[in-house]
Amino acid sequence: MTADLFVGIDLGGTKINTALVDTTGRIVSQDYRETRAAEGPTAVVERMVDAACQVMAQADIAPARVRAVGVGAPGPIDSRVGLVVAPPNLPGWVNIPLGERIGQALELPTFLENDANAAALGEHRFGAGRGSRHMVYVTVSTGIGGGFILDGRLYSGATGGAAEVGHITILPQGPRCGCGRLGCLEALASGTAIAREGRALLAQGLSPRLAELSNGDPARLTARLVTQAAAAGDVKAQEIIDQAMFYLGLGMANLVNLLNPEVLVIGGGLANMGESLFAPVRRIVQEQAFRTAAEAVRIVPAELGDNAGVLGAAAVAMIAAG
Amino acid sequence: MTADLFVGIDLGGTKINTALVDTTGRIVSQDYRETRAAEGPTAVVERMVDAACQVMAQADIAPARVRAVGVGAPGPIDSRVGLVVAPPNLPGWVNIPLGERIGQALELPTFLENDANAAALGEHRFGAGRGSRHMVYVTVSTGIGGGFILDGRLYSGATGGAAEVGHITILPQGPRCGCGRLGCLEALASGTAIAREGRALLAQGLSPRLAELSNGDPARLTARLVTQAAAAGDVKAQEIIDQAMFYLGLGMANLVNLLNPEVLVIGGGLANMGESLFAPVRRIVQEQAFRTAAEAVRIVPAELGDNAGVLGAAAVAMIAAG
Repeated sequence: MTADLFVGIDLGGTKINTALVDTTGRIVSQDYRETRAAEGPTAVVERMVDAACQVMAQADIAPARVRAVGVGAPGPIDSRVGLVVAPPNLPGWVNIPLGERIGQALELPTFLENDANAAALGEHRFGAGRGSRHMVYVTVSTGIGGGFILDGRLYSGATGGAAEVGHITILPQGPRCGCGRLGCLEALASGTAIAREGRALLAQGLSPRLAELSNGDPARLTARLVTQAAAAGDVKAQEIIDQAMFYLGLGMANLVNLLNPEVLVIGGGLANMGESLFAPVRRIVQEQAFRTAAEAVRIVPAELGDNAGVLGAAAVAMIAAG
Repeated sequence: MTADLFVGIDLGGTKINTALVDTTGRIVSQDYRETRAAEGPTAVVERMVDAACQVMAQADIAPARVRAVGVGAPGPIDSRVGLVVAPPNLPGWVNIPLGERIGQALELPTFLENDANAAALGEHRFGAGRGSRHMVYVTVSTGIGGGFILDGRLYSGATGGAAEVGHITILPQGPRCGCGRLGCLEALASGTAIAREGRALLAQGLSPRLAELSNGDPARLTARLVTQAAAAGDVKAQEIIDQAMFYLGLGMANLVNLLNPEVLVIGGGLANMGESLFAPVRRIVQEQAFRTAAEAVRIVPAELGDNAGVLGAAAVAMIAAG
């Protein structure tokens, strides 16, 4: 029996997405469950192992058909030692040897990668970056993350810390980021940043539309509501979006000037804005990056949606297991 | 007779540095001459060919001992087609197939690379980055350039346009850069930027020391004079240096967060400032980059000085010729 299948596990702060995947990227069976991170690493690892068994059982697949398991987990990851270091959205997780624990429980070779790198691998192997040699992947949602495929391979740096796209400084002395520093790209162009500016607008009573959409409740104010208000013609909400897209464009231009990729794939919740995101980002990259590099890059939406992470985790296993 | 020697040619805006180099990076013979760029590409190519013949003659080496020639030239270079595209400091050079022309004249395999990438290869093979797997090289002089060695190899991107370190935007709406855009790192932290701020100080009559050192002549005001005034205790001159080092540190932190290198080599004229440059840059990288990446990187001065380019050009030939 050939071991020609792979299990991908995408561990998020709120949910675990697990799939049995073949080498073409087809999902054979899939399982979603809650992370319940508050219960601590041991319980979460158990749930991940259960989920892996579940996708094999669902597809009526013997474990011998599975060649390896790939896990995508929130960064930072120390790739030298295979540790989940201390991700902000998994409180209480400190230096957990996640790959090793899952591998021992499943008795299968298991490989760990940070979630954004895994998603980049997924988009490169099965999605919008297929066939490219140099690809930059950026995910824009509550945070901003990224992954680089350079010379056809994942580039993760000396300690697995490369591609922290959300934390390049774009505006010195700008708004404070979740990481504690000022003016990071994530503090200027993420969903969190847009929602923060929307709340400020609400507090100043400057956007009737936003007040209506959120029932005046700052806690209900999301980036999605700001984009809805902007789409409905709210000028102040549109200014927030314009500003966020300006900074996102600057960040992308910096990546194009540094890495001169063939393709820049943008995914994450905010990429669902479609042309309201891609049009300004493409324009700013054309204006801000050198001409040869700007002309060489295709800036395109991610194709794998919510499955980028789980397909990427499976790709991590495919690449590592050879 | 083994062809175990290489010719490196470092073409600059004002001078041509040519050397015969062995595989250990030892310079066997060397030639300096003026570029006289104003005379146009044909005359300059002839001078480069003459210089190559000169270093072979000086060392009494038959051309058969030379395996290949490497040329470092001012960017942008389109590596797909081996062209010098239109470098700002070689006016009138448009799409010149420089490698091909020199190769035909010398009847030797000739390889072209942009000067900053060549210098990065030089420092990696023979200088401060020896033995490292992931190295970022940054040169800070009148401009700011760079080169990336990733996974042990030069990374030059889809069209040879990678590592345009001087043109990442660091301060949106900041001072205008030579490239035409606003707030590039080069417009904030290069020798040109420091001299510009020094001239502003002079115009405002705010630095007696700088007025004295330059005889009140803005045309004589260089970055070196600003650092001298600062070293002599001039508070306003020191503020200029502090600000430039702050932005340089931010730029380096961005590179550390994106590329997570083992070593960051800083060369160019301003690196001669020594600890006045390295101390603030190291401090800002520790503050602004993620801890694992910040702890993993050594930030060190370049070792090859003015010969980084010519040794790098020779390294380009060594790598390309196998």
